[in-house]
Amino acid sequence: MAADGTQELDIARIRAETPGIGGPVHLLACGSALMPQPVVDAVIGHTRLEAEHGGYEAAAMQAEALEAVYASVARLVGAQPREIALLENATVAWCHAFYALPLRRGVRILTCEAEYAANYVALLQRAKREDLRIEVVPSDASGALDVAALEAMIDGDVGLIAITWVPTNGGLVNPAAAVGAVARRHGVPYLLDACQAAGQLPIDVGAIGCDFLSATGRKFLRGPRGTGFLYVAGRWLERLEPAMIDHFGAPWVARDRYALRPDARRFETWENAYALRAGLGAAVDYAEAIGIVRIAARIGQLAERCRALLAAVPGVTVRDLGPAPCGIVSFTVEGAEPAAVVARMAEAGFVIGASDPASTRLDSERRGLPVMLRIAPHVYNTEDEIAGAVAALARSI
Amino acid sequence: MAADGTQELDIARIRAETPGIGGPVHLLACGSALMPQPVVDAVIGHTRLEAEHGGYEAAAMQAEALEAVYASVARLVGAQPREIALLENATVAWCHAFYALPLRRGVRILTCEAEYAANYVALLQRAKREDLRIEVVPSDASGALDVAALEAMIDGDVGLIAITWVPTNGGLVNPAAAVGAVARRHGVPYLLDACQAAGQLPIDVGAIGCDFLSATGRKFLRGPRGTGFLYVAGRWLERLEPAMIDHFGAPWVARDRYALRPDARRFETWENAYALRAGLGAAVDYAEAIGIVRIAARIGQLAERCRALLAAVPGVTVRDLGPAPCGIVSFTVEGAEPAAVVARMAEAGFVIGASDPASTRLDSERRGLPVMLRIAPHVYNTEDEIAGAVAALARSI
Repeated sequence: MAADGTQELDIARIRAETPGIGGPVHLLACGSALMPQPVVDAVIGHTRLEAEHGGYEAAAMQAEALEAVYASVARLVGAQPREIALLENATVAWCHAFYALPLRRGVRILTCEAEYAANYVALLQRAKREDLRIEVVPSDASGALDVAALEAMIDGDVGLIAITWVPTNGGLVNPAAAVGAVARRHGVPYLLDACQAAGQLPIDVGAIGCDFLSATGRKFLRGPRGTGFLYVAGRWLERLEPAMIDHFGAPWVARDRYALRPDARRFETWENAYALRAGLGAAVDYAEAIGIVRIAARIGQLAERCRALLAAVPGVTVRDLGPAPCGIVSFTVEGAEPAAVVARMAEAGFVIGASDPASTRLDSERRGLPVMLRIAPHVYNTEDEIAGAVAALARSI
Repeated sequence: MAADGTQELDIARIRAETPGIGGPVHLLACGSALMPQPVVDAVIGHTRLEAEHGGYEAAAMQAEALEAVYASVARLVGAQPREIALLENATVAWCHAFYALPLRRGVRILTCEAEYAANYVALLQRAKREDLRIEVVPSDASGALDVAALEAMIDGDVGLIAITWVPTNGGLVNPAAAVGAVARRHGVPYLLDACQAAGQLPIDVGAIGCDFLSATGRKFLRGPRGTGFLYVAGRWLERLEPAMIDHFGAPWVARDRYALRPDARRFETWENAYALRAGLGAAVDYAEAIGIVRIAARIGQLAERCRALLAAVPGVTVRDLGPAPCGIVSFTVEGAEPAAVVARMAEAGFVIGASDPASTRLDSERRGLPVMLRIAPHVYNTEDEIAGAVAALARSI
């Protein structure tokens, strides 16, 4: 195996196992990536089983496989199965951790400049309701969260560090583990949004030192839409009461009493989309079979190639931040309307996307960013597709 | 058309359009009913579209059809599309309404004796957190909520009436509209759990007079697992802030401010399982095409037949309550272990179910109920299947 870890990747096979290859070239893994065949088969297979036997009966028949999804997700992030809750998306996962965490009136929540809109409005809601203060950790010269600045901001009034590992608007990989070291040193709860990281980067919650981690299935993990998960560190399991409960997470044990489940599933409800869960499990297992380290290396290579080619196109400015940009390539085109560029690229056979400044408002305002264009390749893309996309872009502007 | 409204039902066609017909006889619509082919096709079709084009691209291609799901659900319950939120299950829908409703410290919440466990533990949680009082409206001689007793309990301290229309443990149909009349007369918010009613009974939120109504897709509506919806009366839309938000329901409009959407979708999150939504829409449209009134009549006939046959089996006691029992038939078998009965019925080719006393603890304790057996036929079942099931039961005990 080569030092970059990609030598053994069988790209032809990976492409053959991806039903979306052959249609428009999909370069938007940061939106919703192309599912591999085993994921599609799992979703459709379970749906058919439900149609033939009934929904409860299908779940009972597949009980072992559905239980194994917890183990798969746990392995993916280096956790125990009892620390995993399977939820309908990353936002719900993030919210369940955030809204459950008790915070004293007046405490400070530290977040990052590139924090995602979904999380930030939730911070604003609790800040308003409970008189909390939101403070933004400045970025360093590279654009990443400044860990020294974070540490300097910590005092006894910090109730939570909540940051996004890989922001939606391009390139940046925040120093999740360095933030975790600070959080652990000062005993501050740490909630990490890994929505764009899961499936793109190796995750080890122990090495990161986070208390909670949320992620989605549909992006770099290549799972179905409508899936996500939450990791809750074992040390929190007995202490955290969900903001909303039902009798699955909190069985009704006596007339005036419920008892919360001892595991992270206290954040789940009784009813679930088992066909999608089966797909999520298949996605995680498929990624692990290829190897997340190798996937990460491949995505990194393709993204670097894309940045290099984009940089040579007149009028194009690559906007990525951070010392080692990841698989999301963000850029602007001088004088071009972003939606029109996306549409012209679609006509040319390339699926790319746009990111609204309101998705990462603090960073966008600070940098004066307009709508950004995004290209996010995955392991199933090729160098030729990247080159083709950039050539099409150059022709279209 | 006959007075019972069922004469024109083409049962043979309905069965031909149900892939689960031909396997074990499914008599558990109150669990998760058999999906009709158009529902299966919608789920699988959208999943394939996602696989071929990408998840975001598939949603964009189907935008009009996915938007139409709101109109379908709205029509089903007699509401406006802007009053509908599509959510991942009935519990999440119910919780979103319940946890959003502001309640003064010390107010009373009135509920029914057959209230479902999922809702009751949530009542207990808010009662504990916010010092609220839960009070149970007594049942009348038939076992249904006593509307006169309800009205007598109302004073200025009642903050909410939250009841289940059709309880999970059998037969009972609570007087939802009569409760609504009381709620409207006294200006008390009214949250109705219609989980077992949707698809089984005609629903008209205006006639019922409820403020909020929650339901699932997977039961009598014959939709996919992992779907549900919430109706929020227009008069509440501008006043209710969800307990948890993201940037879909609450766009981040300025650095320190979000603005809630003006419609019921403020309770949704940005990411959704569109394949399942497509299935939910197909389920509602399929039910409407047959006609809910006719479905209700057919289910009622089959359930009545079932009760009559069960009553003649020595050792069997039908346990249903209410003046006009619905499609859920509950019973106990003297000296038999319920799980063993369900298993023996499965061996004989009949899918029936059991309901734990903890699902409806107040009613179960009051009536001293053990685990109850349940048979819940749907429009796709036949009189012969009912007779066959009861005969198999008689042989097995």
